[in-house]
Amino acid sequence: MKPAIVVAAALLLCLAVACAMASDEARSDPQPQYSGDKLVRPERYREWIYVSTGLGMNYTPDPGMADQFTNVFVPQWAYRQFLSSGKWPDKTCLVLEDRNQQSKGSINRGGRFQADLIGLGVEVKDQTRFADKWAYFNFGNDDKTAAANPKQACWVCHENNAAVEHTFVQFYPTLKPIAQQFGTYHEHGAPATQ
Amino acid sequence: MKPAIVVAAALLLCLAVACAMASDEARSDPQPQYSGDKLVRPERYREWIYVSTGLGMNYTPDPGMADQFTNVFVPQWAYRQFLSSGKWPDKTCLVLEDRNQQSKGSINRGGRFQADLIGLGVEVKDQTRFADKWAYFNFGNDDKTAAANPKQACWVCHENNAAVEHTFVQFYPTLKPIAQQFGTYHEHGAPATQ
Repeated sequence: MKPAIVVAAALLLCLAVACAMASDEARSDPQPQYSGDKLVRPERYREWIYVSTGLGMNYTPDPGMADQFTNVFVPQWAYRQFLSSGKWPDKTCLVLEDRNQQSKGSINRGGRFQADLIGLGVEVKDQTRFADKWAYFNFGNDDKTAAANPKQACWVCHENNAAVEHTFVQFYPTLKPIAQQFGTYHEHGAPATQ
Repeated sequence: MKPAIVVAAALLLCLAVACAMASDEARSDPQPQYSGDKLVRPERYREWIYVSTGLGMNYTPDPGMADQFTNVFVPQWAYRQFLSSGKWPDKTCLVLEDRNQQSKGSINRGGRFQADLIGLGVEVKDQTRFADKWAYFNFGNDDKTAAANPKQACWVCHENNAAVEHTFVQFYPTLKPIAQQFGTYHEHGAPATQ
């Protein structure tokens, strides 16, 4: 075999190894996927970065609300950009997972632990797709796709009350100091400090 | 330059790229680190896989316990092995994070959200280091290292009540069906099905 062919073969092998390793990384950089006008249900979000959990959180004084756990997740790539800027990059998805709570089980004598999945709420920042930059979707357990919610349902409340862009970082204790450090934190809907 | 040298250079470059990418991966494979007899505080556990959250969980009927959130995390490499076997590999660390809860804040009108860190509980499977395989450690907010807790403090309760080896998978809704599928799930301390 000619030396030039051996060199070319070695470089192709190198490229193949690098591409295979890079594709492993790419799989962990999920972005919103659409099917027509609908958002495709995010998969494997439980392997994203955990943001925080609430129990029975309620923004209106409605005693009829179920007492659910809500867990929030964001992809690693978007989290890393938040850590270095206090802002969410375009194509960020945040998944809010609703789970039933349970108090009786095994050796537990007090308090609550998490049980079955009820559904997902997904918040997407996609500035090229949505005129209002952010859009909101809900997925029942069997839903593979979801249409965007009406603007009045989620968008307006996030616009008026979210601490960082459209996200409720006021409830996320590890992200709040990052945003404060970068001056992107709005105190209770007040203007950002810079 | 001789072709053989070019080939060697190309292969070295390939090796360097592969090693650099592999070391990125290695950083995400944390294992327990010790300083003498003490466990070194795990860092960046918030970037591990989130397992589940409880609020005010209590294994004894003690009304004096504070009503705290507890978040559990496990490294990605150990999680992947659990998914494919229903068991924890040797050198698995599970971090249980204690956080204060808060109900008044921003637009929240009901329920609780997470606040300041109180401390960490860490459970380690290290069969070469610990005669009892598993050991338990507590870190206050300023602790960089911690000595293992007395066997009576945590180990005995986990030995008697944990659903999978020494871990309370009965409270982890996404891991429970995996362990049940592999037959490694003990119902309330009963023997495993295989």
